[in-house]
Amino acid sequence: MPLNPADAEFVNRLQHSLPDDQVRAPDVRYLQEPRNRWTGKAGCVVLPRSVQDVALVVQACARSRVGIVPWGGGTGLVGGQVLPDGPAPVILSLERLNQIQGIWPEENVMIAGAGAILQDVQERAKEHDRLFALSLASQGSARIGGLLSTNAGGVNVLRYGNARDQVLGLEAVLPDGSIWNGLKRLRKDNTGYDLRHLLMGAEGTLGIITAASLKLAPRPATSGTAMMVVRSPAAALTLLGMVRDIVGEQVSAFELIHGQGLRFLDETVPETRQPFGTDRPEWSVLIELGLAQGQDAQAALETVFLRGHEAGLVSDGVIAQSAAQATDFWAVREMIPEANKRVGAISSHDVSVPLSDIARFIDEGMRRLATLGPLRINAFGHLGDGNLHYNVYPPKGKARSDYAKIVPQIQRMVHDLADEFGGSVSAEHGIGRLKVDDLQRYGDPAKLGAMRAIKSALDPNGIMNPGAVLATA
Amino acid sequence: MPLNPADAEFVNRLQHSLPDDQVRAPDVRYLQEPRNRWTGKAGCVVLPRSVQDVALVVQACARSRVGIVPWGGGTGLVGGQVLPDGPAPVILSLERLNQIQGIWPEENVMIAGAGAILQDVQERAKEHDRLFALSLASQGSARIGGLLSTNAGGVNVLRYGNARDQVLGLEAVLPDGSIWNGLKRLRKDNTGYDLRHLLMGAEGTLGIITAASLKLAPRPATSGTAMMVVRSPAAALTLLGMVRDIVGEQVSAFELIHGQGLRFLDETVPETRQPFGTDRPEWSVLIELGLAQGQDAQAALETVFLRGHEAGLVSDGVIAQSAAQATDFWAVREMIPEANKRVGAISSHDVSVPLSDIARFIDEGMRRLATLGPLRINAFGHLGDGNLHYNVYPPKGKARSDYAKIVPQIQRMVHDLADEFGGSVSAEHGIGRLKVDDLQRYGDPAKLGAMRAIKSALDPNGIMNPGAVLATA
Repeated sequence: MPLNPADAEFVNRLQHSLPDDQVRAPDVRYLQEPRNRWTGKAGCVVLPRSVQDVALVVQACARSRVGIVPWGGGTGLVGGQVLPDGPAPVILSLERLNQIQGIWPEENVMIAGAGAILQDVQERAKEHDRLFALSLASQGSARIGGLLSTNAGGVNVLRYGNARDQVLGLEAVLPDGSIWNGLKRLRKDNTGYDLRHLLMGAEGTLGIITAASLKLAPRPATSGTAMMVVRSPAAALTLLGMVRDIVGEQVSAFELIHGQGLRFLDETVPETRQPFGTDRPEWSVLIELGLAQGQDAQAALETVFLRGHEAGLVSDGVIAQSAAQATDFWAVREMIPEANKRVGAISSHDVSVPLSDIARFIDEGMRRLATLGPLRINAFGHLGDGNLHYNVYPPKGKARSDYAKIVPQIQRMVHDLADEFGGSVSAEHGIGRLKVDDLQRYGDPAKLGAMRAIKSALDPNGIMNPGAVLATA
Repeated sequence: MPLNPADAEFVNRLQHSLPDDQVRAPDVRYLQEPRNRWTGKAGCVVLPRSVQDVALVVQACARSRVGIVPWGGGTGLVGGQVLPDGPAPVILSLERLNQIQGIWPEENVMIAGAGAILQDVQERAKEHDRLFALSLASQGSARIGGLLSTNAGGVNVLRYGNARDQVLGLEAVLPDGSIWNGLKRLRKDNTGYDLRHLLMGAEGTLGIITAASLKLAPRPATSGTAMMVVRSPAAALTLLGMVRDIVGEQVSAFELIHGQGLRFLDETVPETRQPFGTDRPEWSVLIELGLAQGQDAQAALETVFLRGHEAGLVSDGVIAQSAAQATDFWAVREMIPEANKRVGAISSHDVSVPLSDIARFIDEGMRRLATLGPLRINAFGHLGDGNLHYNVYPPKGKARSDYAKIVPQIQRMVHDLADEFGGSVSAEHGIGRLKVDDLQRYGDPAKLGAMRAIKSALDPNGIMNPGAVLATA
């Protein structure tokens, strides 16, 4: 049975069932997403102040069979936060649930509302000499609820794991409007099915995360940052092994940077301070170590360079001599997506493959894409996680619009290749609405069957983020 | 509708539908469990040689509505592996699926069958200079499938996480007999609901894990082991904070040892070499550090001791001067459960509480239990995880059988207390059949509702490990 729209009557009733001014007309910012692929629609936006209010909204929508699109910071890249067609839904924004409800530094635990902005959580942890390890480009606006619902990734996954690995407990409103109070501060709790991990990565289709009990980590006593020019992606991977032989798990980040990305910076963000003079090395890596008391990050990076150089993996390197220089190195990495945007990708891909196949994947992808013409490829990202942003651009002087017709062909080529390598067509961004068909194509049939059964069981009316992850029936 | 028994006719048909000699009469070892609380029943034991065979068994049972009890190493402590009543099930042993299917040291990945014994997996990783971080007392017989199905814990959780945190991918047979091939070697894969984490911790009630893609870690270059006498559990926790200030996440184990446990060793395993002369300190900790190249574990432990001593937390300490001495220290810790067994607990509990409440929990528990008489308590375990084995014994000279009548009262007292502290009544052992009622009593109603909905959706006939985790309807 199709859903009903959040029409004027429903919105009016909802307004009266909630305290004060929680229901609004849908401001345009709730209907957009960063890549402007879709424009959302909505009957209203609701801004609850408590988990009880969230439950009231869900109960009202469940009764009237009205769809709900949960909204965090709106930074998702796959359209999970916008519903472009079908009956107008309620947009349920978690932004007012932004309190840090408690912090227990001696336990390495913090409890934060779903609306807390990632950077605020990081800073609050830092005030207590602790680290909240999730770190990604949109941290100034992305919110905890959305980050967990999408199991976000970022630059520190190598050391600390994905978003889901930062969570001890959750509070959530389930599709029937019941409140699950699972905000435990426990490292071990084997009492029944792990609902946390089911809600994380479900992108709001199985319930709404309203708060989380988060793991903190000790802050590394000392850190070091370097950029090194490597012979190839394969050499970069061997180098990562060497770094781990030297410092164990204390490698906080190991990012692969492609010459194409550096040349895009020259074209579009020329003020970026790049290392290595005016050279634009074809392959380089950004390495960050976070070490314990008494260890010497500088010396460790020098050892990495020397061994890498001896082994013929590394041809050049710069070790940051100050915090400012480390910031410069990171600025290079972090401006690449902006440069990409200014150049304008024909097609962007967020894929992962087994680590030891990453070099072959890059080569084979370039070989196959070359059959479509002189395209430019920027393959960069979280090498240590096997996660590449493998983006395809028009030749210099051409516009992306000239290539609109072959977008599906390019996507298919890259995704088929990832699939052939036993990889994933969505490493960290999720499925949202962008990759619903990809999930059907590449997903395991038994897993898809189980997903549909779980979705029907928990959300029989299909009100939770309709059309995201799984197509509506 | 009740299940049907695996009667002679069903067993005969099953035998003919499977290759060679996979169906056996139920040997007694499949019907026992380590604590002899229950004796299981079964129509037959099946020993499949492949995931396809497992699927055939599940399909046959699904068609005939016959229950299946999955069987790993049989080491579970909550009766998940034995069905004592109701229609006789099929016991499905995974022990023949014990192959290490592949190892990729450069990726830190190994793929192992569900029947692989933990110690074999550890040793195989070690041959490649890698660490498989799960470590627990029964590792010589516990098998990967059972360890993951129950999300096992152990002594290295502090550093490396629970069993579920060691897994990149799974292969499993779902209750409809379909095979989910999710054996990916990926660190990041956000394509749909996380079935891995749903099956892990479900104790065989939602499907049968047949193989896993496992994370390996770099082996610490150098390690150090010490035992230190601490003033109290609270002092132990403060000391853990100090250790982490010094070596960051590189604390591999931090185990609390209670004087009662040491005195039990004197009583029942007197040949155990205990440190600290003939003293039996009321509270001590076993610390293990695993450090990177160039770090000095000995020096780090000396610093821990000195700072702990200065702060009045630590009164005595021994740092192992050889691998043999480190082994002796671990033997003390690992013989405590054996000593406990020989003394004979009235009631054992596997609880967790928030870290900063652990000292209060121990004190308050002792205060409440004292109201029942002069009971002896051995409170020990994985302090860094907030996980205590909080076991209650008769006074010296009395037998556990004298206290049979107050067992429920003791359990209720300890579990109520854990619950009051926001803790868990099953930290690492799971629910099995022992704690089905506890889960109903202490579990969150919304979570329980979701669990039942998921169970019905994936296993509508209730054939998978009937009566474990959730009571049969």
